[in-house]
Amino acid sequence: MNKQTLIETHNRIKPFIHKTPVLISRLLNEETGCNLFFKCENFQKMGAFKMRGASNAILSLTDEQRQRGVVTHSSGNFAQAVSLAAQTLGVKAYIVMPENAPQVKKNAVKTYGGEIIECESTLKAREETANTIEKEKGASFLHPSNQDEVIHGNSTAAIELLEEQPDLDVIIVPVGGGGLLAGTALAAHYFSNKCKVIGGEPMEADDAYRSLISGRIETNKTTATIADGLRTHLGNRNFPIIQNYIEKIIRVEEAEIINAMQLIWERMKIAIEPSSAVAFAAVLKRKEEFATKNVGIILSGGNVDVKNLPF
Amino acid sequence: MNKQTLIETHNRIKPFIHKTPVLISRLLNEETGCNLFFKCENFQKMGAFKMRGASNAILSLTDEQRQRGVVTHSSGNFAQAVSLAAQTLGVKAYIVMPENAPQVKKNAVKTYGGEIIECESTLKAREETANTIEKEKGASFLHPSNQDEVIHGNSTAAIELLEEQPDLDVIIVPVGGGGLLAGTALAAHYFSNKCKVIGGEPMEADDAYRSLISGRIETNKTTATIADGLRTHLGNRNFPIIQNYIEKIIRVEEAEIINAMQLIWERMKIAIEPSSAVAFAAVLKRKEEFATKNVGIILSGGNVDVKNLPF
Repeated sequence: MNKQTLIETHNRIKPFIHKTPVLISRLLNEETGCNLFFKCENFQKMGAFKMRGASNAILSLTDEQRQRGVVTHSSGNFAQAVSLAAQTLGVKAYIVMPENAPQVKKNAVKTYGGEIIECESTLKAREETANTIEKEKGASFLHPSNQDEVIHGNSTAAIELLEEQPDLDVIIVPVGGGGLLAGTALAAHYFSNKCKVIGGEPMEADDAYRSLISGRIETNKTTATIADGLRTHLGNRNFPIIQNYIEKIIRVEEAEIINAMQLIWERMKIAIEPSSAVAFAAVLKRKEEFATKNVGIILSGGNVDVKNLPF
Repeated sequence: MNKQTLIETHNRIKPFIHKTPVLISRLLNEETGCNLFFKCENFQKMGAFKMRGASNAILSLTDEQRQRGVVTHSSGNFAQAVSLAAQTLGVKAYIVMPENAPQVKKNAVKTYGGEIIECESTLKAREETANTIEKEKGASFLHPSNQDEVIHGNSTAAIELLEEQPDLDVIIVPVGGGGLLAGTALAAHYFSNKCKVIGGEPMEADDAYRSLISGRIETNKTTATIADGLRTHLGNRNFPIIQNYIEKIIRVEEAEIINAMQLIWERMKIAIEPSSAVAFAAVLKRKEEFATKNVGIILSGGNVDVKNLPF
């Protein structure tokens, strides 16, 4: 793993992703006292940065592997990303989903051509079902956050952000499974001399924060956060990167997440999902710390039920 | 009035407005069967195209006039646009608002430095109050839609759209007071050989549709539309332009407006106000008519109460 790996990754996926815009907001700069640069992965294909990692993972397979298809278990953005990336590349995608997953999420996967395999709503059932498909179909298992190709693919959002804004002091991203945080940490390490990386995490699912303190992967007993993309925990591939390369994790309360989300909707006129608001919530919480700095924020996705907003 | 006037207008206001992006959406192209190009005035300064007309109107005043300030009566986007444009240019802005206007709208005007003068909630009271300020302060009255400088300023949104997409077959814009529709008609007339202009109008406030039929300016007896920016009627400056240069007006129902608004929020991940959805609603209603065509749509603004969405 070196800088060249990330450059090759970026070149590999470029034809299959959007180079998303970097937006600024005079009003939010005034509100925070820093210079904010929002990398808008809510405008990415299928609506989230996950398209980057999923595309790279499938493009990294051999022709033989591609012929046998891919499998993942997810009911969120990664399921949609794998479905769309696979469809684009003519690869079969098996998506294991809990039978009680919302119909809207099932429909999204179907729209992108993924084949849904339903199972019980436990992690054990999901893993076993995916395992069975791996064996029976010879499909390659793709992990939403704990797989090198996915982490490298995710890093390209920060690479593009640093290309446009080389003078960033810090990039802040939400942390759930750790795939975006690890990818961003690698990007800053290899593509900037000074840019630090900070994770924003809901207080209600602060496993990553605790993992950095204890030095081992911690899990969440409860995950009562509106940031539904951030309820998972770190893995053995991304945790060492996070340990080595990030500055710290800032935890935020639910009300702070909702307030940050509303501010972005109202002032920037863009739709983001709750998980995306966590990084900006961290800036709002620590205004003094970031004052006058050049702060990059990755808005991770925009797939939200507009009929059911928290404000 | 000729092409040169519009070019000079554009050069005059360029330093004071955003050149807003033109967005495309693969999903919405599939949904409609045409090639859509959305000019995102929801990302304009203060959140609406009104910034263009207001800026041009104030920039067109003499130094002496600027010293005496400007006055308008509006509780909507034009009030904010005049306040911000005036503030930027060091001009005093008097904004006549009905005393029962929502506090959030009063706050927006105050944020941009406008001085609010409250009056009774009738058109007569608003006009009289503005009149008094004109006389007492020597302030110049600015009309939201029926003033040449405002119409010319508004035309620059379509000019920019045609610069980026010269091959447009049609541009569709919402019609309320007629200032945007007239400006867009002039832009298409002078900057394209083939681009037609169509207005989208709520069935519940279809005065412009009826005006084109009767040949005189019609008004609305009731205006029960969610598109609160489109409840006004045409004026003597913009009506002749609209009569001469536009193709037609397509009327849409309330449910069609709400559906179009939701589609744009969900698929494009951007926040638009109900009035902005009316043009896209017209495309959805007449898919056959626009199939395979290059269709420009001006998303007029994004100032919406996210706590009170219609879906």
